[in-house]
Amino acid sequence: MAAKHAHTDVEPPPTVQEVPIGIDAKGSRTESDSMGAIEVPADRYWGAQTQRSLIHFSIGDDRMPKAVYHAYGYVKKAAALVNGREGRLPGWKADLIARVADEVISGALDDHFPLYVWQTGSGTQSNMNVNEVISNRAIQLVGGTLGSKTPIHPNDHVNMGQSSNDTFPTAMHIAAVRQIHEYLLPKVRDLQHAVEAKSQAWRDIIKIGRTHLEDAVPLSVGQEWSGYAAQISDAIDRIEATLPGLYELAVGGTAVGTGLNAPEGFGVQMAQEIAELTGHPFRKAPNSFAALGSLDAMVAASAGLRGLAVPLMKTANDIRWLASGPRCGIGELALPANEPGSSIMPGKVNPTQCEAMVMVCIQVLAEDSAIAFAGSQGNFELNAMRPVIINNFLHSARILADACEKMRTYCIEGTELHRRQIDEYLSRSLMLVTALSPEIGYDKASRIAHKADDEGTTLREAALATGYITEKDFDRIVDPKKMVHLDH
Amino acid sequence: MAAKHAHTDVEPPPTVQEVPIGIDAKGSRTESDSMGAIEVPADRYWGAQTQRSLIHFSIGDDRMPKAVYHAYGYVKKAAALVNGREGRLPGWKADLIARVADEVISGALDDHFPLYVWQTGSGTQSNMNVNEVISNRAIQLVGGTLGSKTPIHPNDHVNMGQSSNDTFPTAMHIAAVRQIHEYLLPKVRDLQHAVEAKSQAWRDIIKIGRTHLEDAVPLSVGQEWSGYAAQISDAIDRIEATLPGLYELAVGGTAVGTGLNAPEGFGVQMAQEIAELTGHPFRKAPNSFAALGSLDAMVAASAGLRGLAVPLMKTANDIRWLASGPRCGIGELALPANEPGSSIMPGKVNPTQCEAMVMVCIQVLAEDSAIAFAGSQGNFELNAMRPVIINNFLHSARILADACEKMRTYCIEGTELHRRQIDEYLSRSLMLVTALSPEIGYDKASRIAHKADDEGTTLREAALATGYITEKDFDRIVDPKKMVHLDH
Amino acid sequence: MAAKHAHTDVEPPPTVQEVPIGIDAKGSRTESDSMGAIEVPADRYWGAQTQRSLIHFSIGDDRMPKAVYHAYGYVKKAAALVNGREGRLPGWKADLIARVADEVISGALDDHFPLYVWQTGSGTQSNMNVNEVISNRAIQLVGGTLGSKTPIHPNDHVNMGQSSNDTFPTAMHIAAVRQIHEYLLPKVRDLQHAVEAKSQAWRDIIKIGRTHLEDAVPLSVGQEWSGYAAQISDAIDRIEATLPGLYELAVGGTAVGTGLNAPEGFGVQMAQEIAELTGHPFRKAPNSFAALGSLDAMVAASAGLRGLAVPLMKTANDIRWLASGPRCGIGELALPANEPGSSIMPGKVNPTQCEAMVMVCIQVLAEDSAIAFAGSQGNFELNAMRPVIINNFLHSARILADACEKMRTYCIEGTELHRRQIDEYLSRSLMLVTALSPEIGYDKASRIAHKADDEGTTLREAALATGYITEKDFDRIVDPKKMVHLDH
Amino acid sequence: MAAKHAHTDVEPPPTVQEVPIGIDAKGSRTESDSMGAIEVPADRYWGAQTQRSLIHFSIGDDRMPKAVYHAYGYVKKAAALVNGREGRLPGWKADLIARVADEVISGALDDHFPLYVWQTGSGTQSNMNVNEVISNRAIQLVGGTLGSKTPIHPNDHVNMGQSSNDTFPTAMHIAAVRQIHEYLLPKVRDLQHAVEAKSQAWRDIIKIGRTHLEDAVPLSVGQEWSGYAAQISDAIDRIEATLPGLYELAVGGTAVGTGLNAPEGFGVQMAQEIAELTGHPFRKAPNSFAALGSLDAMVAASAGLRGLAVPLMKTANDIRWLASGPRCGIGELALPANEPGSSIMPGKVNPTQCEAMVMVCIQVLAEDSAIAFAGSQGNFELNAMRPVIINNFLHSARILADACEKMRTYCIEGTELHRRQIDEYLSRSLMLVTALSPEIGYDKASRIAHKADDEGTTLREAALATGYITEKDFDRIVDPKKMVHLDH
Repeated sequence: MAAKHAHTDVEPPPTVQEVPIGIDAKGSRTESDSMGAIEVPADRYWGAQTQRSLIHFSIGDDRMPKAVYHAYGYVKKAAALVNGREGRLPGWKADLIARVADEVISGALDDHFPLYVWQTGSGTQSNMNVNEVISNRAIQLVGGTLGSKTPIHPNDHVNMGQSSNDTFPTAMHIAAVRQIHEYLLPKVRDLQHAVEAKSQAWRDIIKIGRTHLEDAVPLSVGQEWSGYAAQISDAIDRIEATLPGLYELAVGGTAVGTGLNAPEGFGVQMAQEIAELTGHPFRKAPNSFAALGSLDAMVAASAGLRGLAVPLMKTANDIRWLASGPRCGIGELALPANEPGSSIMPGKVNPTQCEAMVMVCIQVLAEDSAIAFAGSQGNFELNAMRPVIINNFLHSARILADACEKMRTYCIEGTELHRRQIDEYLSRSLMLVTALSPEIGYDKASRIAHKADDEGTTLREAALATGYITEKDFDRIVDPKKMVHLDH
Repeated sequence: MAAKHAHTDVEPPPTVQEVPIGIDAKGSRTESDSMGAIEVPADRYWGAQTQRSLIHFSIGDDRMPKAVYHAYGYVKKAAALVNGREGRLPGWKADLIARVADEVISGALDDHFPLYVWQTGSGTQSNMNVNEVISNRAIQLVGGTLGSKTPIHPNDHVNMGQSSNDTFPTAMHIAAVRQIHEYLLPKVRDLQHAVEAKSQAWRDIIKIGRTHLEDAVPLSVGQEWSGYAAQISDAIDRIEATLPGLYELAVGGTAVGTGLNAPEGFGVQMAQEIAELTGHPFRKAPNSFAALGSLDAMVAASAGLRGLAVPLMKTANDIRWLASGPRCGIGELALPANEPGSSIMPGKVNPTQCEAMVMVCIQVLAEDSAIAFAGSQGNFELNAMRPVIINNFLHSARILADACEKMRTYCIEGTELHRRQIDEYLSRSLMLVTALSPEIGYDKASRIAHKADDEGTTLREAALATGYITEKDFDRIVDPKKMVHLDH
Repeated sequence: MAAKHAHTDVEPPPTVQEVPIGIDAKGSRTESDSMGAIEVPADRYWGAQTQRSLIHFSIGDDRMPKAVYHAYGYVKKAAALVNGREGRLPGWKADLIARVADEVISGALDDHFPLYVWQTGSGTQSNMNVNEVISNRAIQLVGGTLGSKTPIHPNDHVNMGQSSNDTFPTAMHIAAVRQIHEYLLPKVRDLQHAVEAKSQAWRDIIKIGRTHLEDAVPLSVGQEWSGYAAQISDAIDRIEATLPGLYELAVGGTAVGTGLNAPEGFGVQMAQEIAELTGHPFRKAPNSFAALGSLDAMVAASAGLRGLAVPLMKTANDIRWLASGPRCGIGELALPANEPGSSIMPGKVNPTQCEAMVMVCIQVLAEDSAIAFAGSQGNFELNAMRPVIINNFLHSARILADACEKMRTYCIEGTELHRRQIDEYLSRSLMLVTALSPEIGYDKASRIAHKADDEGTTLREAALATGYITEKDFDRIVDPKKMVHLDH
Repeated sequence: MAAKHAHTDVEPPPTVQEVPIGIDAKGSRTESDSMGAIEVPADRYWGAQTQRSLIHFSIGDDRMPKAVYHAYGYVKKAAALVNGREGRLPGWKADLIARVADEVISGALDDHFPLYVWQTGSGTQSNMNVNEVISNRAIQLVGGTLGSKTPIHPNDHVNMGQSSNDTFPTAMHIAAVRQIHEYLLPKVRDLQHAVEAKSQAWRDIIKIGRTHLEDAVPLSVGQEWSGYAAQISDAIDRIEATLPGLYELAVGGTAVGTGLNAPEGFGVQMAQEIAELTGHPFRKAPNSFAALGSLDAMVAASAGLRGLAVPLMKTANDIRWLASGPRCGIGELALPANEPGSSIMPGKVNPTQCEAMVMVCIQVLAEDSAIAFAGSQGNFELNAMRPVIINNFLHSARILADACEKMRTYCIEGTELHRRQIDEYLSRSLMLVTALSPEIGYDKASRIAHKADDEGTTLREAALATGYITEKDFDRIVDPKKMVHLDH
């Protein structure tokens, strides 16, 4: 139900003028809320509650991510449309709010959302920031008085049927889904394809394998990279598997989950409207009390991000080790030289993309731990740790995505093989002895390997010297090409 | 392929005798491996490599979990069956190994698996422990000489077609799946049902809601508990969603993923056999290089456990806060008094089950962070952080399961309501004013609430004093029963 | 030793002109490094290597903190002064570099340090950014050609005797020490004093204690707050105890710790110079190999920050719980109402400063875990995880400091007591029975408490009814004032 | 003050008999507490509260560490001595309790302390376990009736003047200090000396340095290892710096910090007595409210352990990378071959001690995060997360200590150099070009390095070909021996 004074609204709709975004004023303007009047910058749309938050919470430089406000734009637009359709809000008010909400969604009003991450744990202040900005921008568009809350009231109209308690987690889910779908996954898929392409290109090039950092039996370079590709691919699947949880929206629960002051069916209609507006299959969360009191779907989605960071860290580490050298390391890979590597050592080239990726992955693991911790700290009808969760989540997704793009562009795609080094290792290794094991048994094979190691000979020399195997059999069996099973 | 001497095995099968488990001997016995001879306790089945590990890795008291060995029993049995079926191993050898593997699976040989968690990162020493024990126990059953490796050789026969590199992660996945399916989920479901039952029982009892720890609008006790139930239920779903990753087995990849020394199709056959033996839908991992080089599915499964710990911590905290008092806290719940609470304060009863649960959840979050960290530290063809991962995983699953059972039995099921306290809060709260908001607007409603707070009156008194609403309307609108929407 | 061409520098010193900071140019300018030429924005001082980094590492919005550059200003100034003094650099060049370094220190050149956190792990790119900016700004001051590296070369002159490998961790330590001394500790001390003042003001007000959230024996409000004050005070001590580690500077180790290309004594002289410039007792690290290969002092300093977050989280939680209500919670404290608490519930006031503090503390714990993880990932002569460490450290220190200031100003200082509620709890509690224990024994005291609880009577009524104690003795012994031992 | 009935104790002291530890009985015995009677195993000393805890908290296999009980032995002995000395306890009772406490300290009663870690968060159940066991063992020694609580009552006598709230953290600090001093530090120092010895032995052997995993300028092997030694040494210092916090004991605060029911001066006397008994400089914590409500000193001590894990992880990683190969890795070090490395690859030797150490370090970092998390979760007068903290702390200290010992014995001490490999790398590297930089400038030196790299020549060839430097100057300057500054 809308406030009674909205119901009895019979004045004719005002004319909406084409006023560009921006307030041509200097100094300050008086705004007010239930705690009284307060001065706000005259060229900003925000109202009293935003201003109070700015004063009380200027902690660090961390601002609530813009993506949260863009997501809130969808919430406010959907609410206006639903409320208008159901007659709780006059059509022109609904249209006006929806119009301004579009400006919010587009980012055109970003400068009017200044609040810090470290604010009220429910996100109320950011919700009120949106309500106030939409109210005043709408007032501007109909030639009203900024701060008058007339004809569009931040609480009674923009927030109609809603609470921060249900809409903030709704906006979190929308922002997270959009970030994953529209920003993160495309970049990760591009990286996966680039790795996959290398795996194909190097399919037949046989190299020595390494386990425990120690020489092992051979595999092909393509096989090694197919492992990286498969890990990233699995990570993408796991991220996608967290989306259904994010599609469930808290909206409709209002203050504590009961839906007080929201009309029946409001949550379902809202979710449907948001789904249509965003193109993602959002739906009302089946249990509103869990949806307000917890952020479990966000914790799970964060585990999805972590699940990408873990294989990326392994891949980045492998690549920088395989490229180590150029003359005193493993030296199988040649990475692109993007920049001078040292301020003191001339000619040095370093695996900097890999290092950046490793640092990003460490950061993501840490931010994931913050999200899980915060997720555990809800009390009763509210988890009041929302801002720290959404800020870390969006940040992790962002830096992972960007690092994938940079890694692909400036490292993976330009990586080449040092074929001579790869071949040399292969010919040198003693672990090809493993192929003899099914023929002569583990114990004799072991003796051959130790003999070659002790005496510094090749495996072949040691094997023949023992008499455990004939020259012909040795050459037939100890053939790296046969040992890698490219067709398996 | 099996070792050649196995192929040409033409001696008649020895008779298998019914020898009970145990070696009736004192002192030590000489065993040997490729590094030479070493004394082992005469009454133990293990061999030289187990003994070396015992000496070199006696770090703390943490032993490789028995569940890993039971899982390894399935691996060894499946390998014997597959190798026997394909003629690589004489039927009687296959049967003998399978028979002893059954003893491993049953736990009857647990005392012969003494190794520490902190050992080689590949788990090779635990694999060799299994190979050695099966070898010697099989030798005992056919009246052979312990330590002779004849007629059952630990490497050539028990380990045929396998490497630690592919079988240890295989055993990890089997152990994890069994722990989740057979131990954890039943206990979590029981807890979920107990919480759900409370939610049903208290469906209509209206109480004050709390957000930010502050009085909010009402909901029913049943609704509040439905949130707990839904969170646990979702957590179960999320754990189940991690199982498909665990169903993929590394087996068949052998040393580096290429399947060297394993016959073609061995991995697929092994996974199928293990699936039949365990009753879980295991299959060969599509990419063996990822399966050996990473433990990403374990990292994801651990996130599943964490995803249970997070809501359990919230629930346990809520319950202990709601039970706080008895006279100076919130006091809505009465928990069972299981034990005296204080060594100095007579008559004190504390929410100890909740505290144990909270501590368990903190531990699980920490162990999950160890798993993710370790998951990121693979190199090349191997992640050599396996023991730390499986030990933490099985431990987390175990303490979560047990804590759920204790919490259900000794806390949830016996929890009662302090109805008088619940009713009193409801009648006292000022936040019922929210219901007036749609009628008189947010700003006037806010003034009423502040007036009541300042003057220490009831909401009704303050509301009528302002003249914003009639007595009749107030009583019609501010009715907690109407505010909780039990039918939504 | 400086480069030879520096040594033989005989041209007369150019005139230094008073050119304000800023380059009045549009479009781009060509700069070059060992990899060739590249265009940079014409109005920026940075050179080729900075530009390459900007292109290759635009990951997220995280920029290397300005505090690192200000610290680097000290390093470059000290190096110029030392090199000038020792005759390795002509006096006018030393003076010129020192002058521009002062501009760096002051923050006046902040706009010319645009690099991302996620860059090379050694911080080389930020070091080169400083070298390039100082070079070009110096060139501008003497009327030279930007990008010509003449007469001040970024490597040969600004970086003389240095490597990124030793100067970046040096700058990290300087930045960390300044942040702790000049920003964090003052704000924490102010908070500590504010808490201490409350403890004094409420010294004699007796309240019920709570353990396990359950009613316990009494203490005074002042005693309770003295605990908070003591915890913060101890945390300050622990932070200060990490400073000696940070005072040890890597400078002088150059590329790998041997001090190659730095003259003998350079590290000691540099540390001394930096100590004089900053006023903090810096000294050369006794082992340069540890100083380059590890960041252990940073990990320890981060533990110091965490050691503050832990008690702040406890304090913030206590305060919001004690303020819970106003009518359905514990309600012993009245927090200042800084802003409306709810977009839907009129009149709601929430403990938002406490929530912000709790979120900040969670973030700090997470960032500390990133720092420890990164600290463990060094290899050989370098820990290449420096940017992620310094960024998290400075961020944690910043948000902790600001949160302390806000918490003090907008919460602690304005907090008042609800005396009536405090007194009522005290009179109601059953745990005062504890005082009887030494007189009548634990078992009888326990029976009295249970009797009162079961029958809903006061403790006094129950006690007298049992006959275990006389009325006179009861009144003498069960006196809260005597139970709190204010004079201990 | 002791309970009144103790005061009026006038019966003559019973005779103490020399009864060996152990109860010769089968089946069960009835014990009781304020909740009634309960059966306990007849051959155990524990009483009703221990038994209730065993039933209600059988979660996992994690038992409260024995070290906590040994520490509690000191607490109980000290209390008996102080109470006896002050006349609150008859001398013979004090002596009897002290005598049994000695048995507790010695570990002789370990089998009678069966409780789980996951119990009440205050540790009350373990305190009562100690009280009950001492009571019954004392009763046995004087020929009394087990379970009669006469003549030694678990609460009134053994727990006299104490609460779990003050004694459990006291026992935690004692246990932690003893574990650090008597177990951890000796083993870490031994490791440090072993590393230091290697550093001395290899002082003059010059090798190539590596930064970013890439070839850098030379240093000596001894210098490299001096870095490891310095890091461990610093870590020891940092651990020792956490001890003063642990020396402060909560004892004397009793239930909430006020010291109710403890005589004046009791805390100070207790701390003094404990200091004498243990030989460590314990003292009463200056603020009892902080000492009960927080575990900040434990959190700081855990950071000390983490501060050791971080450099150990780096060192272990360095060693296994430097030993990688033997033919396809870096191969500078030869580690002792303690065991066969592979079940499938004959002759393989792996850096298993390093892997075990790395896993231990990961575990310690995770357990440290649990401790910090738990440390933040105190409420009001109690941190009820004590068991999870002390269990993780003692475990971390234990596995770190043991891993140090194994690493030293089975890896460090037997490590040798592959001199040929070390020399070859040195001769091959291009980074020696750095030494030319001060002579010819960074830019020309850079061109030489790139030329050699492109053309696959030695540095010398490339340098002379450019004409930037004469043969004589090259040979004078590019001399690794001069580049490492062994005398700095």
